[in-house]
Amino acid sequence: MVSGGARAVARCDALGVPPYSDMAGGLYRGYLTPAYAHAQAALAGWMEEAGMAVRRDPAANLIGRYEGLDPAAPALLIGSHLDSVRDAGCYDGPLGIMLGVEAVAALHRAGRRLPFPIEVIAFGDEEGSRFPAAMLTSRAVAGTLVAEALDLNDGDGVALGDAGVDIGAYLSAARAPETTLAYLEAHIEQGPVLEAQGLALGTVTGIAAQLRYQVTLRGMAGHAGTTSMPLRRDALAGAAEAMLAIEGLARDAASDLVATVGRIEALPGAANVIPGEVRFTIDVRSGDAARRDSAAEAMIDAITGIAGRRRLDVATTLVHDLPASPCDPQLTGLMDAAIVGTGQPPFRLVSGAGHDAMVMAALCPTAMLFIRCKDGISHNPAEHVDPADADAALQAMLGFIDKLGETFAAA
Amino acid sequence: MVSGGARAVARCDALGVPPYSDMAGGLYRGYLTPAYAHAQAALAGWMEEAGMAVRRDPAANLIGRYEGLDPAAPALLIGSHLDSVRDAGCYDGPLGIMLGVEAVAALHRAGRRLPFPIEVIAFGDEEGSRFPAAMLTSRAVAGTLVAEALDLNDGDGVALGDAGVDIGAYLSAARAPETTLAYLEAHIEQGPVLEAQGLALGTVTGIAAQLRYQVTLRGMAGHAGTTSMPLRRDALAGAAEAMLAIEGLARDAASDLVATVGRIEALPGAANVIPGEVRFTIDVRSGDAARRDSAAEAMIDAITGIAGRRRLDVATTLVHDLPASPCDPQLTGLMDAAIVGTGQPPFRLVSGAGHDAMVMAALCPTAMLFIRCKDGISHNPAEHVDPADADAALQAMLGFIDKLGETFAAA
Repeated sequence: MVSGGARAVARCDALGVPPYSDMAGGLYRGYLTPAYAHAQAALAGWMEEAGMAVRRDPAANLIGRYEGLDPAAPALLIGSHLDSVRDAGCYDGPLGIMLGVEAVAALHRAGRRLPFPIEVIAFGDEEGSRFPAAMLTSRAVAGTLVAEALDLNDGDGVALGDAGVDIGAYLSAARAPETTLAYLEAHIEQGPVLEAQGLALGTVTGIAAQLRYQVTLRGMAGHAGTTSMPLRRDALAGAAEAMLAIEGLARDAASDLVATVGRIEALPGAANVIPGEVRFTIDVRSGDAARRDSAAEAMIDAITGIAGRRRLDVATTLVHDLPASPCDPQLTGLMDAAIVGTGQPPFRLVSGAGHDAMVMAALCPTAMLFIRCKDGISHNPAEHVDPADADAALQAMLGFIDKLGETFAAA
Repeated sequence: MVSGGARAVARCDALGVPPYSDMAGGLYRGYLTPAYAHAQAALAGWMEEAGMAVRRDPAANLIGRYEGLDPAAPALLIGSHLDSVRDAGCYDGPLGIMLGVEAVAALHRAGRRLPFPIEVIAFGDEEGSRFPAAMLTSRAVAGTLVAEALDLNDGDGVALGDAGVDIGAYLSAARAPETTLAYLEAHIEQGPVLEAQGLALGTVTGIAAQLRYQVTLRGMAGHAGTTSMPLRRDALAGAAEAMLAIEGLARDAASDLVATVGRIEALPGAANVIPGEVRFTIDVRSGDAARRDSAAEAMIDAITGIAGRRRLDVATTLVHDLPASPCDPQLTGLMDAAIVGTGQPPFRLVSGAGHDAMVMAALCPTAMLFIRCKDGISHNPAEHVDPADADAALQAMLGFIDKLGETFAAA
């Protein structure tokens, strides 16, 4: 008999091809596309098989409800997202949904009811897969959207309101806080930390605080053949020194701090011209906003010093400042215990990436479980999850649900 | 009375606007364009005023001839190029022509004839200003072109043969070596070395040997938020370390060696993704090919070491290997003496940039004189030459011509 974890993985695989993908030879499932409708139809069938009553909310999220002992009790929501980036892997999002379905299916097979209802929610847009707005649907559910934010067009100029949702009712997807007990999300790590630790699972303590800067260094463009080394004001050589300083500061922190220069542009960009101007980005993240801020300050100081020594002008613009979003400490403890229950030591990590859980924290306490993925690869067809790891995740989720039931009963 | 140097500068300025430019608000004079025809017409008038007989050769170069005492003697050619890059400065090329005209004008006013004829040659294409081939016209004169090299189309698809030249006669622009005594070119330095030395003039010892590489570093792309620092294989951080090593090796050489990374591309190029692949160019030049080669070898070794330590794959492709082109040692000595004759100490430097003189060396002995330009700026409307420096250059050229006359008479 195939395990629940293996079935969850297999269902993600099944949704990785047309008609569940709008892209031949790969996976792309945008919010409210034909592939999205096909995937919702398949998922609705699996939810019903697992004993759930299925509905679509005004934001076109698919929700399966498994009643509890007290139908009026606030529900445990288990969710993740059904949409994908272009040329995606199969597990980023859907795996958390399929594991939620498997958790309910296991309870249903065992004839068990918890003191509270469980709702499995498949969010429609986390990736900004079609409209230029990420986490649109969890924001609708968490009640943090405003009507103006719905004035969106996709790349073909189709308005959100013409894409298959009633725009006037969209905000009514918001849930009343008193109807929600907690939000649980399982997700592939999308990074290499668990693999490097040799662990299948990790408890997410929160989503990292993120700063993003745009840096411009200006020197003097010049002929690569005619400008002797001491006379140069080479903006790219200065940027190189800055990038090494950024990396060094992040490494020296020996913490969860990460810093990345992901985009660089050197102008004029000819092999025989000394770059006169270089623009690059810095992305700095940590679960600890104070650590992030002091590291970013040290980086900007280092760049300013380098620019001064090299006679370069420097301009630094703060592009993003996203606060950290901690998971609920009590639920995090329950998740640690549930992981221990699967026979693995507890391991905590910060999520460097954003997730629907970050948004749902505005509505209710949240918990997140990370699942090891191969080589940390995500947003790529090579994304891979071991079915045994998915099964361990399912066991941890069931353990978490049990412990939440005990806590709820004791309250 | 305006000096010859000031008049040469003023004539370059006059040619910097329409109809001598094909670009409103700036200078662009492509080979065989309307602006080129207007500039040739103006130049022909100035050549005639200076006592020259004017002709256009089969490659559409404009040539003014000032007879010598012996019309059968081989000629001293004084030249540079009339074409320009887009949004150019006014002096890169034309100044050397105008100074040649002024030198002849001075001899003509004084009623002096040298033992040899002087021909002032305005080359049509040095920059590759219209067709994808640089130094086309000096190659035609030097006799180093083959017919296949004339199969060229401009950006609008117009063939060279339809642009105003007789393609069948083009190669007959080649001069017989026995008709050429020497080639003299005065040119703005296009670099900051003379300015930093506080000198108006410099003797060019040769044109640098140039190597160009394309380097690719490959690591592993990853999410900027989810990949901890020790687990990264960041191709851009590796490139940063490589760029600093390249700069350091070039600086440490404390010679005429220069090395430049002018073009860089980081993929996938998103602020929140660790670059998995970086491509960059290296341009290495020196007047001494052995020095250049050993420096380039040390750079490639350094990059290989960095890539190894960072677990990056490295691929290095040699794109260009241009040999050094030394100026004639005897003529270089005459030029030193001519510069001393203007009251300035002699100063020698290597040209990092290519010039028509490099091509003409295949035909006859060459000499080059560099003239200080402001801030080393060239290929830019901000290009600037002090008229006093142009006048010093004119005096040095006249001194050089005198000394060449003495040498010729003594031979």
